[in-house]
Amino acid sequence: MADREIGVAVLGLGNVGSEVVRILNEHAADFEARVGAPVVLRGIAVRSVDRDRGVPAELLTTDAQALVDRDDVDIVVEVIGGIEPVRTLILSALNSGKSVVTANKALLADYTGELADAAKLADVDLYFEAAVAGAIPVVRPLMQSLAGDRVNRVVGIVNGTTNFILSAMEETGADYADTLAEAGRLGYAEADPTADVEGYDAAAKAAILASLAFHTRVTAADVYREGISKITAEDLASAKAVDCTVKLLAICERVVGADGEERVSARVYPALLPHSHPLATVNGAFNAVVVEAEAAGRLMFYGQGAGGAPTASAVLGDLVSAARNRVHGGKGPDESTYAKLPIAPMGETPTRYHVNMEVADRPGVLSAVAAEFSAHGVSISVVRQEDTGNGASLVVVTHIAPEAALAETVAALDRLEFVNAVTSVLRLEGTGE
Amino acid sequence: MADREIGVAVLGLGNVGSEVVRILNEHAADFEARVGAPVVLRGIAVRSVDRDRGVPAELLTTDAQALVDRDDVDIVVEVIGGIEPVRTLILSALNSGKSVVTANKALLADYTGELADAAKLADVDLYFEAAVAGAIPVVRPLMQSLAGDRVNRVVGIVNGTTNFILSAMEETGADYADTLAEAGRLGYAEADPTADVEGYDAAAKAAILASLAFHTRVTAADVYREGISKITAEDLASAKAVDCTVKLLAICERVVGADGEERVSARVYPALLPHSHPLATVNGAFNAVVVEAEAAGRLMFYGQGAGGAPTASAVLGDLVSAARNRVHGGKGPDESTYAKLPIAPMGETPTRYHVNMEVADRPGVLSAVAAEFSAHGVSISVVRQEDTGNGASLVVVTHIAPEAALAETVAALDRLEFVNAVTSVLRLEGTGE
Repeated sequence: MADREIGVAVLGLGNVGSEVVRILNEHAADFEARVGAPVVLRGIAVRSVDRDRGVPAELLTTDAQALVDRDDVDIVVEVIGGIEPVRTLILSALNSGKSVVTANKALLADYTGELADAAKLADVDLYFEAAVAGAIPVVRPLMQSLAGDRVNRVVGIVNGTTNFILSAMEETGADYADTLAEAGRLGYAEADPTADVEGYDAAAKAAILASLAFHTRVTAADVYREGISKITAEDLASAKAVDCTVKLLAICERVVGADGEERVSARVYPALLPHSHPLATVNGAFNAVVVEAEAAGRLMFYGQGAGGAPTASAVLGDLVSAARNRVHGGKGPDESTYAKLPIAPMGETPTRYHVNMEVADRPGVLSAVAAEFSAHGVSISVVRQEDTGNGASLVVVTHIAPEAALAETVAALDRLEFVNAVTSVLRLEGTGE
Repeated sequence: MADREIGVAVLGLGNVGSEVVRILNEHAADFEARVGAPVVLRGIAVRSVDRDRGVPAELLTTDAQALVDRDDVDIVVEVIGGIEPVRTLILSALNSGKSVVTANKALLADYTGELADAAKLADVDLYFEAAVAGAIPVVRPLMQSLAGDRVNRVVGIVNGTTNFILSAMEETGADYADTLAEAGRLGYAEADPTADVEGYDAAAKAAILASLAFHTRVTAADVYREGISKITAEDLASAKAVDCTVKLLAICERVVGADGEERVSARVYPALLPHSHPLATVNGAFNAVVVEAEAAGRLMFYGQGAGGAPTASAVLGDLVSAARNRVHGGKGPDESTYAKLPIAPMGETPTRYHVNMEVADRPGVLSAVAAEFSAHGVSISVVRQEDTGNGASLVVVTHIAPEAALAETVAALDRLEFVNAVTSVLRLEGTGE
């Protein structure tokens, strides 16, 4: 067995790719010992070879397809990102019997089915630990460690940019726009931050997590999504007043519909979270994922969710697994979609609301507001009223109710004569009641 | 492939075994879908069949060896515990080509080598996720997810009984004996609590963690061990005064000796831990393991470290992996011992001390005490002196120094005329300086 080499092609030489190449070189002896054969870098596909990239020039190529096609490449590591040309490259690698390791959440969230089918047909590995929560092992625990359990819920902080912004807003009291600008200056937000701040990145990860947790194919389009760009300094202050913080959460839940059937609810939004919740203390660019399973109970995984080296760690763990399978036979588990649960409509999702209103400061207002909640079957947990000089500020925290009932209540409140404005509606998670 | 069944023998029907059997039965359809073949329970080995065990009587047998030997058994699940007859049963299972899943940390800590060799020779799986930290995936992340990284440190709270006792002592201010008795009444401590409170259980887990983290065979005898039975209410109060808690830690570190060579330090002792450390908030019977790796940075895994259902979750995750390999070919990674790092003597281990002394209340004492630390090359971080009416209480917190230098300093202090007694010596971990 040890007389063969495992040939690796790396597609992309950005933050992650550079670290993958560096570690593969520096720890070549470790890789050989752990795999049972030398792991040899055959080439690196880059957009242009005219810059000094800190790697031997003869390894660089702009022809990614030719690199993937080489006979001496066993495993393709894709760290370019985006959909094309990556999707075509990965499919061609799988179709020609090469295993693939990728960190590409956007691709996986939309094309897992196609890629997994190709991997299964070719009897090769498709690994993607790095696509969710960077260095934190989450994919392997869900696919393997919890394979004998029944997962009911996965809740994660899976986007470092938004967590950095929300943590900073909470700490400094600054508003969203200023904090986003600061995050950009510090390198925590990209020039175009849309994918992060509008929740697209988190939604892609939620789709992957929900697919793994519930043995059901879930795509990014199945994930309800709201970003953090409307969160205000007042929202954070208001959350603090009820001993909560605000986090952008990716929530994947097994829910039971009105018809008694199980469905998958997958959603991403900023939500109030009690300070006592384990995810509330996850600050800055860190990520964490809480998994609740029937037998295991509540597990939490915490660490760095992004960055070149942490993401490379996850990529290289997958590379060792794929390489070992090449040397010793066998392969990782296939995509598991047997449960085929339907996606729960957002309106059916059980949740709690934290509603902030400006109301006229006169008798009977609270009673009329309470009547509106009651009329929609929504039970109130906490009410807090404050005189603002010009009218009053009224905060209502509800018990759990279907999202649709809550949305209708808020619409009805907005129509009440003495409600000047519903200034903020945030969901409350992690309280279980 | 799907026309075959995977036959399973379960050895033991205690807390864990009962849950394994219950879940296998209740979720049989899930197991079949996830494995790709029916997973069928062939029998359960028990000490006596004369009690109603809540399982079909025809599955029970007292002849564990005959059950293991059955031709229709592919995988043996061992949840009896202890060394014999379990070691013989597992070896015979492996030697006859059966895969083994075990939760037996004591056996693994001493006999991993023998068992791993047998598994490798027979080309079968030996899985043991449940042996460390119950439901929390730690073994698989170390063996697989971090296989492309370089682990420098593993620090864990891996024993629920001692963590329950220390958490309760901190909360109530009660002393050790009373708290242990209360833990016994609540079912958190066994009738003979020695294995837990003296750190033997944690040391076995430390040996397993160190072996996995450093690709080196480490046994329980290689682990330096102190238990919590000498911890006093005063120790916890004193820790609180420097914003620390006390935790029984299992620490596995890559250290560099005076000769520049890498060694493995594996040790278990109660230590002060700053309240800001992620492990400080792990209370009650919960477990958590922090892994620090070169590329991944700091990861934390948190959850229930014991109990029937959580341990069964880990056992069944392993069972699904072993069964998939039976159906689809391949096997999990072999034991990895290529690094063969020597064990660091405890005296060389870098650590910090928190020393509590009763001293005469007169001028020059502090200077003489400080001189003693200095004479042994130990740098002082914090000194806190309190008048106790009858002399003074002096607490010295050191910077990092070799354990031997610290131990010699304490011995020298004890000989000083005006030091009435060194009342407590605890190590301080998790501060990094």
